[in-house]
Amino acid sequence: MTNQKVERWGLFEEAFNGPSDGNPFLDVSLKATFTNGANSVEVTGFYDGDGIYRVRFMPDVIGEWSYTTQSNQAALDGKSGQLTCIEPSADNHGPVGVHDTFHFAHADGTPYYPFGTTCYAWTHQTEELQEQTLKTLEEASFNKMRMCVFPKDYPFNKNEPPYYAFERNEAGEEDHSRFNPVFFQHFEKRVGQLLEMGIEADIIIWHPYDRWGYANMDEETDYRYLRYLVARLGAYRNVWWSLANEYDFMLEYKPMERWDNFFQILLNEDPYDRLRSIHQGHPEDMYDHNKPGVTHVCIQHVDVRQVVEWRKTYGKPIVDDELQYEGDIVYPWGGITAEEETHRFWFIVTNGGYGGHGETYMHSDDILWWAKGGVLHGESWKRVGFLREIIEDAPGGLSPHQGADSNVFPQRMSRWLWSQYSGAYHGDDYHLIYLGVYQPARFLLWLPVDDAYQFDVIDTWNMTIEPAQVSVLSEPPDYAYPFPEQPTYELILPGKPYLALRIRK
Amino acid sequence: MTNQKVERWGLFEEAFNGPSDGNPFLDVSLKATFTNGANSVEVTGFYDGDGIYRVRFMPDVIGEWSYTTQSNQAALDGKSGQLTCIEPSADNHGPVGVHDTFHFAHADGTPYYPFGTTCYAWTHQTEELQEQTLKTLEEASFNKMRMCVFPKDYPFNKNEPPYYAFERNEAGEEDHSRFNPVFFQHFEKRVGQLLEMGIEADIIIWHPYDRWGYANMDEETDYRYLRYLVARLGAYRNVWWSLANEYDFMLEYKPMERWDNFFQILLNEDPYDRLRSIHQGHPEDMYDHNKPGVTHVCIQHVDVRQVVEWRKTYGKPIVDDELQYEGDIVYPWGGITAEEETHRFWFIVTNGGYGGHGETYMHSDDILWWAKGGVLHGESWKRVGFLREIIEDAPGGLSPHQGADSNVFPQRMSRWLWSQYSGAYHGDDYHLIYLGVYQPARFLLWLPVDDAYQFDVIDTWNMTIEPAQVSVLSEPPDYAYPFPEQPTYELILPGKPYLALRIRK
Repeated sequence: MTNQKVERWGLFEEAFNGPSDGNPFLDVSLKATFTNGANSVEVTGFYDGDGIYRVRFMPDVIGEWSYTTQSNQAALDGKSGQLTCIEPSADNHGPVGVHDTFHFAHADGTPYYPFGTTCYAWTHQTEELQEQTLKTLEEASFNKMRMCVFPKDYPFNKNEPPYYAFERNEAGEEDHSRFNPVFFQHFEKRVGQLLEMGIEADIIIWHPYDRWGYANMDEETDYRYLRYLVARLGAYRNVWWSLANEYDFMLEYKPMERWDNFFQILLNEDPYDRLRSIHQGHPEDMYDHNKPGVTHVCIQHVDVRQVVEWRKTYGKPIVDDELQYEGDIVYPWGGITAEEETHRFWFIVTNGGYGGHGETYMHSDDILWWAKGGVLHGESWKRVGFLREIIEDAPGGLSPHQGADSNVFPQRMSRWLWSQYSGAYHGDDYHLIYLGVYQPARFLLWLPVDDAYQFDVIDTWNMTIEPAQVSVLSEPPDYAYPFPEQPTYELILPGKPYLALRIRK
Repeated sequence: MTNQKVERWGLFEEAFNGPSDGNPFLDVSLKATFTNGANSVEVTGFYDGDGIYRVRFMPDVIGEWSYTTQSNQAALDGKSGQLTCIEPSADNHGPVGVHDTFHFAHADGTPYYPFGTTCYAWTHQTEELQEQTLKTLEEASFNKMRMCVFPKDYPFNKNEPPYYAFERNEAGEEDHSRFNPVFFQHFEKRVGQLLEMGIEADIIIWHPYDRWGYANMDEETDYRYLRYLVARLGAYRNVWWSLANEYDFMLEYKPMERWDNFFQILLNEDPYDRLRSIHQGHPEDMYDHNKPGVTHVCIQHVDVRQVVEWRKTYGKPIVDDELQYEGDIVYPWGGITAEEETHRFWFIVTNGGYGGHGETYMHSDDILWWAKGGVLHGESWKRVGFLREIIEDAPGGLSPHQGADSNVFPQRMSRWLWSQYSGAYHGDDYHLIYLGVYQPARFLLWLPVDDAYQFDVIDTWNMTIEPAQVSVLSEPPDYAYPFPEQPTYELILPGKPYLALRIRK
C-alpha cells in the first residue's frame, strides 16, 4: 500500500479484501488504530459488499500517521500502513463545532454561521433531479442541507427510491441484518459532493414517514444501523448527526430511552465527535436538549421570538430548522410567503439564533424543493443569502440585546425595545437591529463618546444597504429615556417595514 | 314642569335650583326615584354649578314614568314630575350589553360588534381639532371610542387642556372636593355627540400619564369622582366604564383593593349596569377579569393568537384594545404597518374576539390620532371598516374553530389548521377563515351533503370579495385526512397572503 497524502480534515480510505460468506455485517469485526506520535484514533471499518471492507479516517494533525487493523478475521487483522497528513487546501477549514457557546466555527477557527436549507429526500430521486439539485445549490448560498438517509413516504412524496437500505429478496422483503452497500455508496457520494461545495450535511438518521419498515426497526437493528453510519460517514468532515426528523412521532415504537441511547453511542463511539442533535414535531415535545449528548439545539417552532428563552434554557447554539417554509401548500408549515420566511430568518438571527430554509410550492409533478430538491421557485432563498453575507461580515457571533446589559440603550428603553424589535450585538463595536413589521420614522440610540460610527440602513427585502441619515441630538426627545453621559443619535428612517440597522465602530 | 317625551333609552334630564353656598359637592345629597308601574329606578343627581342641580335618567320601559326626589336640602327634596317614554327612533337600539357569552348586543337585540378606535385625549384639544375629530369619525366606520376623562401628559401630549377637572385657585392649585362643572359639561357634550353618531364611548376613568394630580388622588376623592361620573354620564346609553388605561402603572399609589372597590361601586350604584372593564399595561399584569364586576375583558396584548385561551380563561367577551397601533413612532406599540394592523384585526376577529384601532403617525404639530384625534393618515382604518361590514353581515357572533368540534374539518386536520390559520363559525351555516401570512394554492374543507354553499374569497387588504373557484373532489388528495361521508371541497386560491374565505349555506 502506498503512503497516501491526505489533507488535514480530508478523507483517508483504505480497502481490504475479506470474507464474503456468512453475514459479514454480523460476523466480521474490523477496527483500525491511527497514530501520530501521542495522538491515537480508533475507527471502525465497515463491509461494503463483494468481499470488500473499508476503513475511513479523517486526520486532524499534520504529519505522518500509521495505522494497524484489528479484526476477528485473519484476512483483516493486523494490516498496517501509513499516510501523510498535509496542509488543508484553501477551502478546507475543517469540521464545524460549537464555538463561543451559542455559535459554530470550523476547526481552523473560521466562523461558521449556518444558513441551511432542506431537501429531505433529494438523494432518493432520479439521477437527473439529483444533479439539478446540486446545480441549484451551486447558485444558492446555503451552507447546510438537512437530508434523510432513508426515503420518504409522505404527501407529495410517493415515489419509490432508486435504492433500498437493506438487501431485498424477490418478494421485496428487506433483510435488516444486511445493509445494501449500493444504497450507502450512493448516499455518501452525495455527502461528499456537498462537502466539495462547502455545504454541511445535516444527516437525518430516522424519520416517521415510512412505508418500507425503516422507521420502526428493532432496537438491535437501530443500533447496528447507527454504528454503520458512523463507520461509513463519520470521516466526512461535513457530517452532522441529526437523530431524527420529528422524533416524537416515533415514540410509540422508538421510546425515549432509545433516543437517549443513540446519543450515548455517538458520544462514546464517534471518533470525531460530530455535531449531534434531534428534531421534534410538536412544540410541546421538545427533546431535553440539556442532555449532554446534544451539542446544539435543533428545533421546529413557528415562534422565532422564543430563541432568547431557548438560549437561556439550553446554553447551546439554537437552530430553528423549521420556522415554516415558503410555499403554497395547505399545511401551514409549508405555506408562508417569501416575505414572512425572510422576516423570520432576520428575526431569529438578530436574536442570536439561526434558522433553516425550506420551500414547498405545489408542482405539477410533485417536485417540491423541501423534499425532492430540483430548482428553487421562491424568493426568500436570495434574501437568506443576503443575510448570510451580512452575518459573515460581522466580527463574530451575535448575542441578543434582549435581557442583556447594554452600553447603547438605556435599561428602561431596552424593555420596550426588545419586547418587539429584535437586536443583537458583538462586543461593543457591532449592532444589528431588525425592525420587522415596525416602521419607526426615527430610531434612537446612545453611543459612547469619542468613537466614530458607521450607520447603515438595510432593506432586508430589497437587499440594499444604504448609509443612514443620522443626527446627534443635544438632548433626547421627550419620548425617550436619557442615557447619562452618552450622546443621543437619531436615525431618520424611510418609514417602511422589514428594515435593519447596522451600527459599526 | 312639563311632561317630557323621551324615547326609550333616551336621556331625560331635569334641573333644580338649590344651595350654592358651602360645598354643594360634599354637603348636598340628591337622589330621585323613577317609577313605571312595578319598575322603579333610583338615580343620583349632581351639582352642576351656579346653584343648579340635575337629575338624569334613561328610561328603558315605554310608558308613563313619574319621579320624586330625596335630598338633605329642602329645596331639592320631594320634587316630583312625569315623563312619557316613547318608541325609540330608528337608530336607537338601546345600550350595549354582553350577549351570547362572548359577544355584545344592543338592548333591542341588534348585535353590536365593537370596531373601536382610540383618541385618548381628544376632548382636551382645541375646539377646532375636536370638531375635526368628529368629522373624521363621521367618515370612518368606528363604533367605539376609547377616551380619557382626564387630560394626558405623555410624549406627543404636552399641551395644557382647555378645562381642568376641579376648581383651581389663582396659584393653579385644584381643590379636589370641588368638581369643575364646565369640564364635565364639555366632556359629556362630546359623549352625547358620539351617541348621536352611533359610537360607544369607552370612558377611561383613570390613567397614569398625569401632571395635574388626577392619577393619584386620595381614596375618598377617587370614590367621589367615580360616583360623580355615574350621576352625570351614566344615563347616556353609549357609556362604557373603563376603569383605567394601564391600571398596573398606578398600583404604587392606587392599590389593587381600590380597583376592586371601584368595580363594586359600579356594580352597586350604576342603575344601568353599564359595561365595565379595565385595561392593563404589561401582559403579566392582566387584571383578574374573572372577578364578577368585570363584564368584558379589555386587554393590551400584542399576541392576538391568545384570544382563544382568554375566552376559555374568562368566559366573557374579549376586546384587545391595544393590539398595537398603525404608525411610525419608535415605540413598538405605535409603530406597526397598516398591513400588520389589519392582519391583527382579522386574526382576532376570526378567533372569536375583537380588536381596537389606533393610529400613531408622527406629526409636525404632535397631532397623533391615538391621543388627540384630528384626521386619519393611515390605511388600516378603511380595512377595519371593511371587516366590520363583513362581520355585521354574518348571522351572529363568531366562535373559534380552534378547540371546537367541527362538522367541516376532520379532527386531525383541525389540529394543524388552527394552530396557524384562524377560523371562526356561527352555527352550521357560516364560516370565516383567515389565512394571514399563509398563501395556500388550494384549501380543503368537508361540507355536509345535500346543502348548497356559497364560497367567497376575501382580499382583506384590497377589500374585494370574489366568488371562489371550487371543485368537489371524488376523494381527498393524499395530503389531507378524509372526513367520512362528507364530500371534499377544494378551493383554488390565488396564492397570496391576507386572504379570507367565507362559506355560507
